[in-house]
Amino acid sequence: MERPRHQGMVKNTYMRWRLPLVCLLWEVAMIVLFGVFVRFGPEADAHWEEEKQEMNLTSDIENDFYFRYPSFQDVHVMIFVGFGFLMVFLKRYGFGAVGFNFLFAAFGIQWALLMQGWFHSFKSGKILIGVENLINADFCVGSVCIAFGAILGKTSPIQLLVMTLFQVTLFAVNEYILLNLLHVKDAGGSMTIHTFGAYFGLTVTRILYRPNLEQSKDKQGSVYHSDLFAMIGTLYLWMYWPSFNSAISEHGDAQHRAAINTYCSLAACVLTTMAFSSMLQKKGKLDMVHIQNATLAGGVAVGTSAEMMLTPYGSLIVGFICGIVSTVGYVYLMPFLESRLHIQDTCGIHNLHGMPGLIGGIVGAITAAAATEDVYGKEGFIKAFDFTGTYQTRTPSVQGGFQAAGIVVSLLMAFTGGALVG
Amino acid sequence: MERPRHQGMVKNTYMRWRLPLVCLLWEVAMIVLFGVFVRFGPEADAHWEEEKQEMNLTSDIENDFYFRYPSFQDVHVMIFVGFGFLMVFLKRYGFGAVGFNFLFAAFGIQWALLMQGWFHSFKSGKILIGVENLINADFCVGSVCIAFGAILGKTSPIQLLVMTLFQVTLFAVNEYILLNLLHVKDAGGSMTIHTFGAYFGLTVTRILYRPNLEQSKDKQGSVYHSDLFAMIGTLYLWMYWPSFNSAISEHGDAQHRAAINTYCSLAACVLTTMAFSSMLQKKGKLDMVHIQNATLAGGVAVGTSAEMMLTPYGSLIVGFICGIVSTVGYVYLMPFLESRLHIQDTCGIHNLHGMPGLIGGIVGAITAAAATEDVYGKEGFIKAFDFTGTYQTRTPSVQGGFQAAGIVVSLLMAFTGGALVG
Amino acid sequence: MERPRHQGMVKNTYMRWRLPLVCLLWEVAMIVLFGVFVRFGPEADAHWEEEKQEMNLTSDIENDFYFRYPSFQDVHVMIFVGFGFLMVFLKRYGFGAVGFNFLFAAFGIQWALLMQGWFHSFKSGKILIGVENLINADFCVGSVCIAFGAILGKTSPIQLLVMTLFQVTLFAVNEYILLNLLHVKDAGGSMTIHTFGAYFGLTVTRILYRPNLEQSKDKQGSVYHSDLFAMIGTLYLWMYWPSFNSAISEHGDAQHRAAINTYCSLAACVLTTMAFSSMLQKKGKLDMVHIQNATLAGGVAVGTSAEMMLTPYGSLIVGFICGIVSTVGYVYLMPFLESRLHIQDTCGIHNLHGMPGLIGGIVGAITAAAATEDVYGKEGFIKAFDFTGTYQTRTPSVQGGFQAAGIVVSLLMAFTGGALVG
Repeated sequence: MERPRHQGMVKNTYMRWRLPLVCLLWEVAMIVLFGVFVRFGPEADAHWEEEKQEMNLTSDIENDFYFRYPSFQDVHVMIFVGFGFLMVFLKRYGFGAVGFNFLFAAFGIQWALLMQGWFHSFKSGKILIGVENLINADFCVGSVCIAFGAILGKTSPIQLLVMTLFQVTLFAVNEYILLNLLHVKDAGGSMTIHTFGAYFGLTVTRILYRPNLEQSKDKQGSVYHSDLFAMIGTLYLWMYWPSFNSAISEHGDAQHRAAINTYCSLAACVLTTMAFSSMLQKKGKLDMVHIQNATLAGGVAVGTSAEMMLTPYGSLIVGFICGIVSTVGYVYLMPFLESRLHIQDTCGIHNLHGMPGLIGGIVGAITAAAATEDVYGKEGFIKAFDFTGTYQTRTPSVQGGFQAAGIVVSLLMAFTGGALVG
Repeated sequence: MERPRHQGMVKNTYMRWRLPLVCLLWEVAMIVLFGVFVRFGPEADAHWEEEKQEMNLTSDIENDFYFRYPSFQDVHVMIFVGFGFLMVFLKRYGFGAVGFNFLFAAFGIQWALLMQGWFHSFKSGKILIGVENLINADFCVGSVCIAFGAILGKTSPIQLLVMTLFQVTLFAVNEYILLNLLHVKDAGGSMTIHTFGAYFGLTVTRILYRPNLEQSKDKQGSVYHSDLFAMIGTLYLWMYWPSFNSAISEHGDAQHRAAINTYCSLAACVLTTMAFSSMLQKKGKLDMVHIQNATLAGGVAVGTSAEMMLTPYGSLIVGFICGIVSTVGYVYLMPFLESRLHIQDTCGIHNLHGMPGLIGGIVGAITAAAATEDVYGKEGFIKAFDFTGTYQTRTPSVQGGFQAAGIVVSLLMAFTGGALVG
Repeated sequence: MERPRHQGMVKNTYMRWRLPLVCLLWEVAMIVLFGVFVRFGPEADAHWEEEKQEMNLTSDIENDFYFRYPSFQDVHVMIFVGFGFLMVFLKRYGFGAVGFNFLFAAFGIQWALLMQGWFHSFKSGKILIGVENLINADFCVGSVCIAFGAILGKTSPIQLLVMTLFQVTLFAVNEYILLNLLHVKDAGGSMTIHTFGAYFGLTVTRILYRPNLEQSKDKQGSVYHSDLFAMIGTLYLWMYWPSFNSAISEHGDAQHRAAINTYCSLAACVLTTMAFSSMLQKKGKLDMVHIQNATLAGGVAVGTSAEMMLTPYGSLIVGFICGIVSTVGYVYLMPFLESRLHIQDTCGIHNLHGMPGLIGGIVGAITAAAATEDVYGKEGFIKAFDFTGTYQTRTPSVQGGFQAAGIVVSLLMAFTGGALVG
């Protein structure tokens, strides 16, 4: 090659042919499986003209594309720019974080379209996809990005691809149990995405524990510009989180409500993060790691309940608590996890996704259990929790119980899966 | 804490406990006030199902969420990434600019939801919020970001929070006077956001004048990468400005028109900025400060008139003039302001928001005064200026007079408010 | 000027007055031409209220603004941030790439509104513009950005402006021939934007060949942070490409389908790029230039066919092939082009836009030729290819032939135009 340029992604120990082979073979497998199974859903198919007449729709604007596409693009930015750049703060892994994130996410969304498709969009032998499937695939990969945050710097690209393959599979199974068997609500994924992703990653990193990693700790130090890049990641996650939590909610008021609740929770979270970061540091300075991470905990923690009638002040309370929990986690819990439990949590995902995810699941269970027809309106109540068909007689308190069960299932799946993969 | 990382936001003079206390107490106050006052508006409430039937809406797509949410997200990016990163060009305040912007903006949007809510969305004892309130809260905080640009480097985080508290309050009062009492149009906020924010900030910085700040002038120097970060800020402001000016316009043609006018004005502004920047510098080189700032003046200056029938060529003319005015301001007026009037305008907000904001107010007044039923159509005329109810008999020329009065009121509020806060 | 700051865009050889004069005079010309020709289209005009009644529309949401504005903003980001930052990887031209991109793009969109307007939106003496015109203007400028990638570092700003003037003109002529005379489909612009832009730029750079440019080759070297900035450009192009290819498709299923096809093609492209980049390099390392560029080839190559029934697995196949072709192009073809044909392709646009654009044209021709009423449905078939009026009797295979003719015309226009301008 004529143009000499410095070649990134240094010193990985995989052999010359393994990464190319895995990428090519897996992609061929994707093509074959897509060829056999995946087709356009009715709203993306050219037969939509006839479909519209059947469904009595008078306008093209009724196509789900217009309800969800803007949110989809925001979620897409969160997964590829948000998570990618958030991890750039580690100067040693800067470009690797972005590049590897790009690689496994691109594979993961394809595999997720298949796995989630088989469970949720399978009709007469075909997976019928639309914009909602794209969002769900991005969500699923988001959970892998979270787990990646715990093991960053410990794995080769191939190990990451293998982990992605298994984690996406388990994610889809867990999601199926929660959404279909337990009939649980989790539009923003406090349980399915954050709790599952975080504890999966933590289990894996526990198994990959390397004592001598401590010696290279100074390589974890960040530099000025890296912090600005990381801040780009943080801000895009923070700004677009309302889209994340509202992207697959029911059309209309539910999407609207989810965005407002998330906006409120995130705003409150910034203030308590800054307060505790300043309070717990020497000389009252602010720690950038807290600002880059704990400010986002409010979004995680309303993931389950954002589309419910959590109300703006309820969201503020959740954000208030999570900013504190997450910052305290960075200061006190993380050193403890590393020294006592040998869990090296590179990016601190336990503080950003683990605990806030659990809180989110619990808040969701409480909010669901506290629902009344008075607050939701008769029709709104049924629509919000989808109490139709088999679930016609389910009461809010029972729903709350099932929501709580969803947390437990997600945790179990994460520990078991993480142990297997690790 | 195990992980040693360099701690940002250096050398602030606040004591260890003051920032935490202010953040926590104020956030608790927000929770209490939200608990007492803030509820979901009809389109975000679970009763929307019944609301829809009452309002005879046939589809969920009629929810205001779908008209405004994409614009909201663009505005959100402008406030948190745009304004934050624009100020990174000062290498001394890089991370501080982004971090403090994040802190006061997160507080400001909560307080703005309350203040603007009491004035505009108060029904039977409750503030009913929806996506339009979120946009307005972001707008209000945008005005604080502008003022922040003048005092950057002179204040502690606590002083910023106090300034935010007061400025948001005064913003809401000023907005109420303009929109409700004077019945003035200002969808993109040339008067309410830019003129008010800029002259408020300039008054504050005049009062905080520190002669010895000049000695540290070399710290204001920028570096290569800082300029690229600042350019990210500039470009996001430039690209999303059409969303800013159209975000809260009337549904339909007004939003459409506002986006087109802003697009045209900004395009013209880039060319005249480059022309004058090159012309006024030694050896014809371009000054990056001009490119980063003056190119945006065209968006500011159509803030009031963008939703009116300004027409594309009218927008080009406004952009043409503002690129010149703003660049000339950076070269000649700013040194004069500092040496003679003792106004240290760190980011040059007078050139980007002050003068273009005034021009925007004047252009709005002229465009309103020149409106005819012929140009707008009979129904369009009434809809565009909301000439209904008490205002049924108002003529365009009277409207123009009130628009002009709006400029004066905004200026007075800014000077008085800035003096009080300073 | 009081504030000393380092002044960017170094050492251009234009004289002090030429750039200002060109910018000012051309902008005045734009104002005059806009004044004579450009008016708001019916959906952006205040007469829309009456228009709605005539068209029997019941809701403002039927305004084209709501169908296309979110996609427009994504495309806008691609043109100004995506293309601008992608070229930052060359450390020597970092700020210049972003700044000059900003200048000629701002001029280009105005001239494109006029040129494309005369050809496509001219009614009774006026060009009537709406959001679709803004998107098309951005597309047209995208083609200039592509050509800019080939000549980066060889031209002065004035030469760039002159090139923009001519290229936009020729783009509009070529587009008119393809879309109106040949009645060809090309919503994502594989032919009109990528093939035309790339071969235009390559012809220009061939003519501007400077043998001694080789000596300054080390200035092309990139640095760590520049690579992260370039990655921002890459990711925004990659993430928003579904919006690019769907932005001006027919309302409803076509937009939906175009987004899904592009999403799939891009995902597959990342895996084969990584595979071949690793395979073709010494020691199996990944080359960042490939990751920054070749991963995007999948989006280029479904530009023509994305809105057709390409199907998800068809898209994966296209992305699979293009990742390989593009990466191999960087490794083997580019050195050959430079040493034998004296084509110095600074950013490698032949690999990213040239070859993938041609593939895109061919895939489009094949997909069109293979269309059947069975796959599209009776109404969908007519709607997809606009087989109405004069074209009522055109068959898929004839359409395929015309699509192929479109590729040839685009190539001829590019070579002829590039030679003239060069």
